[in-house]
Amino acid sequence: MTPYVHPHSKKAGMPPGMFIHVGVKRTEGTILELFSYDSGTVREHSSADADEIISLVNPAAVNWINVSGLSQTETVGRLCEHFGVHPLTIEDILNTGQRPKIEDHEGYLFISLKMLYPDESGGKILYEQVSLILSDHLVITFQEEAKNDVFDQLRERIRTAKGRIRGQGPDYLAYSIIDAVVDQYYVVLERIGERIEAVEELLVQNPTRETLGDIHSLKNEMLLLRRFIWPLREVIAFLERAETDLITDGMMIYFRDVYDHTIQVIDTTELYRDIISGMLDTYLSSLSNRMNEVMKVLTVFASIFIPLTFIVGIYGMNFDYMPELRWHWGYPALWVVMLAVVVSMFVYFRKKRWI
Amino acid sequence: MTPYVHPHSKKAGMPPGMFIHVGVKRTEGTILELFSYDSGTVREHSSADADEIISLVNPAAVNWINVSGLSQTETVGRLCEHFGVHPLTIEDILNTGQRPKIEDHEGYLFISLKMLYPDESGGKILYEQVSLILSDHLVITFQEEAKNDVFDQLRERIRTAKGRIRGQGPDYLAYSIIDAVVDQYYVVLERIGERIEAVEELLVQNPTRETLGDIHSLKNEMLLLRRFIWPLREVIAFLERAETDLITDGMMIYFRDVYDHTIQVIDTTELYRDIISGMLDTYLSSLSNRMNEVMKVLTVFASIFIPLTFIVGIYGMNFDYMPELRWHWGYPALWVVMLAVVVSMFVYFRKKRWI
Amino acid sequence: MTPYVHPHSKKAGMPPGMFIHVGVKRTEGTILELFSYDSGTVREHSSADADEIISLVNPAAVNWINVSGLSQTETVGRLCEHFGVHPLTIEDILNTGQRPKIEDHEGYLFISLKMLYPDESGGKILYEQVSLILSDHLVITFQEEAKNDVFDQLRERIRTAKGRIRGQGPDYLAYSIIDAVVDQYYVVLERIGERIEAVEELLVQNPTRETLGDIHSLKNEMLLLRRFIWPLREVIAFLERAETDLITDGMMIYFRDVYDHTIQVIDTTELYRDIISGMLDTYLSSLSNRMNEVMKVLTVFASIFIPLTFIVGIYGMNFDYMPELRWHWGYPALWVVMLAVVVSMFVYFRKKRWI
Amino acid sequence: MTPYVHPHSKKAGMPPGMFIHVGVKRTEGTILELFSYDSGTVREHSSADADEIISLVNPAAVNWINVSGLSQTETVGRLCEHFGVHPLTIEDILNTGQRPKIEDHEGYLFISLKMLYPDESGGKILYEQVSLILSDHLVITFQEEAKNDVFDQLRERIRTAKGRIRGQGPDYLAYSIIDAVVDQYYVVLERIGERIEAVEELLVQNPTRETLGDIHSLKNEMLLLRRFIWPLREVIAFLERAETDLITDGMMIYFRDVYDHTIQVIDTTELYRDIISGMLDTYLSSLSNRMNEVMKVLTVFASIFIPLTFIVGIYGMNFDYMPELRWHWGYPALWVVMLAVVVSMFVYFRKKRWI
Amino acid sequence: MTPYVHPHSKKAGMPPGMFIHVGVKRTEGTILELFSYDSGTVREHSSADADEIISLVNPAAVNWINVSGLSQTETVGRLCEHFGVHPLTIEDILNTGQRPKIEDHEGYLFISLKMLYPDESGGKILYEQVSLILSDHLVITFQEEAKNDVFDQLRERIRTAKGRIRGQGPDYLAYSIIDAVVDQYYVVLERIGERIEAVEELLVQNPTRETLGDIHSLKNEMLLLRRFIWPLREVIAFLERAETDLITDGMMIYFRDVYDHTIQVIDTTELYRDIISGMLDTYLSSLSNRMNEVMKVLTVFASIFIPLTFIVGIYGMNFDYMPELRWHWGYPALWVVMLAVVVSMFVYFRKKRWI
Repeated sequence: MTPYVHPHSKKAGMPPGMFIHVGVKRTEGTILELFSYDSGTVREHSSADADEIISLVNPAAVNWINVSGLSQTETVGRLCEHFGVHPLTIEDILNTGQRPKIEDHEGYLFISLKMLYPDESGGKILYEQVSLILSDHLVITFQEEAKNDVFDQLRERIRTAKGRIRGQGPDYLAYSIIDAVVDQYYVVLERIGERIEAVEELLVQNPTRETLGDIHSLKNEMLLLRRFIWPLREVIAFLERAETDLITDGMMIYFRDVYDHTIQVIDTTELYRDIISGMLDTYLSSLSNRMNEVMKVLTVFASIFIPLTFIVGIYGMNFDYMPELRWHWGYPALWVVMLAVVVSMFVYFRKKRWI
Repeated sequence: MTPYVHPHSKKAGMPPGMFIHVGVKRTEGTILELFSYDSGTVREHSSADADEIISLVNPAAVNWINVSGLSQTETVGRLCEHFGVHPLTIEDILNTGQRPKIEDHEGYLFISLKMLYPDESGGKILYEQVSLILSDHLVITFQEEAKNDVFDQLRERIRTAKGRIRGQGPDYLAYSIIDAVVDQYYVVLERIGERIEAVEELLVQNPTRETLGDIHSLKNEMLLLRRFIWPLREVIAFLERAETDLITDGMMIYFRDVYDHTIQVIDTTELYRDIISGMLDTYLSSLSNRMNEVMKVLTVFASIFIPLTFIVGIYGMNFDYMPELRWHWGYPALWVVMLAVVVSMFVYFRKKRWI
Repeated sequence: MTPYVHPHSKKAGMPPGMFIHVGVKRTEGTILELFSYDSGTVREHSSADADEIISLVNPAAVNWINVSGLSQTETVGRLCEHFGVHPLTIEDILNTGQRPKIEDHEGYLFISLKMLYPDESGGKILYEQVSLILSDHLVITFQEEAKNDVFDQLRERIRTAKGRIRGQGPDYLAYSIIDAVVDQYYVVLERIGERIEAVEELLVQNPTRETLGDIHSLKNEMLLLRRFIWPLREVIAFLERAETDLITDGMMIYFRDVYDHTIQVIDTTELYRDIISGMLDTYLSSLSNRMNEVMKVLTVFASIFIPLTFIVGIYGMNFDYMPELRWHWGYPALWVVMLAVVVSMFVYFRKKRWI
Repeated sequence: MTPYVHPHSKKAGMPPGMFIHVGVKRTEGTILELFSYDSGTVREHSSADADEIISLVNPAAVNWINVSGLSQTETVGRLCEHFGVHPLTIEDILNTGQRPKIEDHEGYLFISLKMLYPDESGGKILYEQVSLILSDHLVITFQEEAKNDVFDQLRERIRTAKGRIRGQGPDYLAYSIIDAVVDQYYVVLERIGERIEAVEELLVQNPTRETLGDIHSLKNEMLLLRRFIWPLREVIAFLERAETDLITDGMMIYFRDVYDHTIQVIDTTELYRDIISGMLDTYLSSLSNRMNEVMKVLTVFASIFIPLTFIVGIYGMNFDYMPELRWHWGYPALWVVMLAVVVSMFVYFRKKRWI
Repeated sequence: MTPYVHPHSKKAGMPPGMFIHVGVKRTEGTILELFSYDSGTVREHSSADADEIISLVNPAAVNWINVSGLSQTETVGRLCEHFGVHPLTIEDILNTGQRPKIEDHEGYLFISLKMLYPDESGGKILYEQVSLILSDHLVITFQEEAKNDVFDQLRERIRTAKGRIRGQGPDYLAYSIIDAVVDQYYVVLERIGERIEAVEELLVQNPTRETLGDIHSLKNEMLLLRRFIWPLREVIAFLERAETDLITDGMMIYFRDVYDHTIQVIDTTELYRDIISGMLDTYLSSLSNRMNEVMKVLTVFASIFIPLTFIVGIYGMNFDYMPELRWHWGYPALWVVMLAVVVSMFVYFRKKRWI
């Protein structure tokens, strides 16, 4: 299987509306967490049973159901169907190869995002699909894994009524979730920035074949990143325009803030791409530079010793009549000649700045 | 004949409305298959005679006529003319060098697509033109070959009333056909993804002249692919906007889904192009790297042995007065000198990291 | 004079409305041909006298005046002025360095196109400016040369009433002329496609300096071609929108067909450009590849013989005390040593895959 | 920490509206300067206490509060809150990683700019964030450092009533501040222009590895610069359209002037980028050129001496029967032969233009 | 001072509306020429005194004041102020680093253009700023130098009433001036076209380091040229739309003509850029080609003589027991062996097509 394209193909030919989890099965179970709060009270409940959670939803409060793990497709389907989610939307939630997008359905807004976080060990970027359903008094989020703690600070803010979240509606909750996801992008970009710096240092000092590999893996990672970040802009621009009743006008200023962050993230991504492609040029010219250096050493060596070897060859000849061979000072005189050749060569190469 | 441009030229100068099959004649005959169904019943009929099929069309049901093979132009012409298809549209159906497009004619919608499928043996992409006429109670599809089984699953769904297709109108049928074609693109992209991975592995291990050929053939295939995929976006965007009476408003959500798939396919195509062009850079720098290595070996060899050869040349000279030659320890001493030269060379090249 | 820019400069500073033929004078005379036809009758007349032709124009029929050769500027001026053509339009007709364009004047539509045809001998693309005036009951076309037969099939269709041209108005005639010009582009593109294939074959087999020249001349030809083809799109898009009374609404479908052809031609042009620029990359990497090969041969030769030459140099020395020289098996033993050196070298280079 | 991306990440997960200074803490304190003027009078006051400054604001005059240093977030917060600035705007003021932007809030206009100035010692570009709040009778500016004197000339003009500033409203003051910031960009671009010229001279004379480093640092600086200059265009275009009541229609002509300057700055930036990328090409081809030169020297030396060495080797052989060795004129004759070899080599290489 | 950016910086911090001539002072004085004409009469007057010229302006006729030389800023200021020109416009006239632009002020239209002409001696492009004020009955033009004769033909046409200029209003005069400026661009492009051809010929024959310099100077000149030509399009598009009362509707067709010329000029500029960047590729591949050739010569020489030198080295050894040395035909036999080596080498290299 290729790492670049999602194996959507296994659904080829199926009728729309079949709920199949397309993606790597990351966790076994599917856990649902419910937060039900208003300015005064907050209630938390966690269960693997969709109906249990559904029964606890309080239409008078703001409800946040977070679904971790998508392998139990019936649980996901049961939950979605109860809240009137269209089968095609459920398919999109279960198929984790989505492009970030927003869809305005009757009665709810569907948002699909990518959550990025750096792989702590290897430095690679990991990504996970986050789907969000925003309706009248409810926000449902779907994650592939539960272990990620991007939402932990948000949960804490709801519990402790920190900031203004408790007094606001579900649109503010949706904003807070999206903001948390986008803030995470900065973390990822900083890690990439650090790797770029590390490779730049290597490039200056001693570029090797591994450096080329590093540049290319950075480049390919940026290609993947762009794919997830660019569509995000449209998603949040839609939210900023608040073209749906589900988002109150007062939220516009908040979504404009997230929009600004997204633009900054895009800007930085493009900057990194330009820097990385500049690094490739540097690598190639440093290769040429080194070749030049090797060639100069060879040329200097060969050009100095080849004439000398010729000279000593002359006096190794066995002609009967070679007067120089008989001279008493012939041998020392030859040394003088050879020294002169070496010196003049040195002067020549020094003038050409090869030594 | 060039593989890149279709020999449209043989029609140059002809009046519009002459029905000539422009393209490679792939199959001899032309076979028409009729599916006539509503939620309750389904009837199938297959024939080579247009009039027979026309007589079986049931205006009260959804009718799907699939035409396989375009060589019998009179059959195609007869069928189209009966259903009021414009001569220029018939020309477009018969000329298999079309760009994907959609045309809103009076009484029907004409859609031209490319169906892609991987060549099972050689790994190349094959493509075939699929034309689709959508009218009031009828969908007609035209394929170049019958042997392809992309529509088989769809036929099965109609027969067995799987999914909701039997209760829907001809617009849903058209959607299902287009969806099947687009789903096939994922299959093709996955094959290309596999080939990209194979070439990337070769690039890392031992890039040869064949690797370059592979990269270029991948690149040219992506160029062809893009040509078929980009116009598809406009086609499906038109369908999504449902600007014609032939498509009911309820279909919008389905076509938006296909539109999303098309965008994903385009995204992946662009990603692949970037990756392939990065592979070319890698190939070129790996060539430079190898040249560097060759040059270093030559330089190390030459630089070590050229001075030694000079030294032994000196004592091969035949001067009458060369005191060293008479010394008893001259020969072993020379070995020591030469060893010293070799060692210092080694140290020098090691310092330069050439060895 | 440069081949790339038209010597418009000789008009610099002149007042607008001076009729000067700017361009290479291709034919001496200027010949006018009149076709005057309706569904029933067709009359043909040919003359070098503008007034004679003007007197024969039948306002009740469709009239097509084809002007071949632009050197008799007074004839052209006389004809145009009689039909109320603006002096600036006449200037544009006479100046053959126009960019394809369409202008909606009062009482007439002015279209300037480039007609392309392959040079039969050398394979180069030749181009000729075709201007078209479409008014109420009249189409006037202006060609630089008469020898070209692109319009011959069209004339034949008018004479023999083949197709539907005889029953249609001047807008259909204008469409037929433009269609004939655009169809000719396919012919040119096929020739270029053939040349691209020939160069690609050369590239694979034995790329030489001439191959590079071929690639560059292909590239520059594509640059010129694009310059003529891209503006064509806007011209025909204007006609398709039928924003003028001179074009009846029923023509829309025909111009959409030409528009599709134009888009296909543009598509193919862009595809060719990408392929040609890929050929340059292949050429450069094949150069690098060959350099690598040359270097390997040199390195293998030098690295094998340089140590051997050193060894035989040792035993060419004239030291008094060199015990090896006295050994009876010294000489054969040396051969064994040298053979061992050669073999180990071979093994080394084979391991490096240089041999 | 990477120099490219701002460590926005330390805010990840926090609720909106927390005032934290994100950026390098450049100065310890926070100083507020108030200018309160109308056509007749001008009053200046400086303090570190927000309330003191607030009490001195004269609603009947034009008031300019300049805040230098952002480390005392409470002072900044207190000032902003008093004038009804939204918490998200305050966050943007304190977070110095903003992209240039303009926001139309209720009651005020918020503008975020980058001020650039050349580093006097090293030639690098330094940048500082300038935020501007424009409301009814008030302009508040926020700078990261106080030491910069870009606004000094403006202060002088207010004090001495030079130009027309004293008779105008706060929108003219805002314009003057923005104009001063944009004018500074010219200074920075001139410095970069000088550095480009210096590098170009080096490139012509003697390009070294340091030259490559210079080109790349220029390139990366232009990448950063673009990031700050491009968004500026939208900011000033917004002002030029004067879509808010805070800007009087008469200001349009002034903002159009600043807009023109911005376009010129963008133009020059793009020109520089193209020139710098051309320099990279020159560098690479000069490397190739030099390699060619080195190779020619080696080839000339080797090709002249290798045959000579072979010739003298022949007559160093110890065959018993070598008639040439016995000839009296053998040795001088050999010199003649060798001279002939050298001369013919010279002629050959001269013909190839290698010497 | 850099040649790329105009030293706008010396105005940094100044209040708007200070009249300072920013640019190279090209001529000492400032001369004003007045043409006052209608269909019947024409009057010419020349003076250095603004008031004298002002007093001669005839409101009933078309007046053209041409100002040559901008160093006398007071004269320019006096003239402009009398005709109600805004101080910011006067600044733009005096600052010769403007980007081509058009501004619709109350009572007048301000146009800033670049006039290009080839440097007669060196082949470089010179440029000069031309500003144009079009008001009710008046056109004022500002040139940096008087020596240029671009307007001479226009003056002659006014004097001799050639063409239709004398019967038309100031908008036709403005059109004639702009037309003269744009026509001059063709002259400049033809010169560049000639230089491109010359360099292309050099590239084919014998590319040297100077050729690279020529390509780069052509490239940089095209970069500058583009900067002046692209904005021109918007300027003339504005005039074509005739959105101001100062331009009568009948002028539309004339400005469309100039617009077409501008598009042609832009087209040619882009074509030249593509050709020039193709020349760089050719240069680099010709460098690689030549390196290949050098390497082949070296390899052929070395590979032929190194084995021979080894062979003669063998028989230069002084072993006591070397039977070959004693053979009578040893020496001639060796020559045969060596000849065989040379011949087989030749065959080998011929097969590899190196000779």
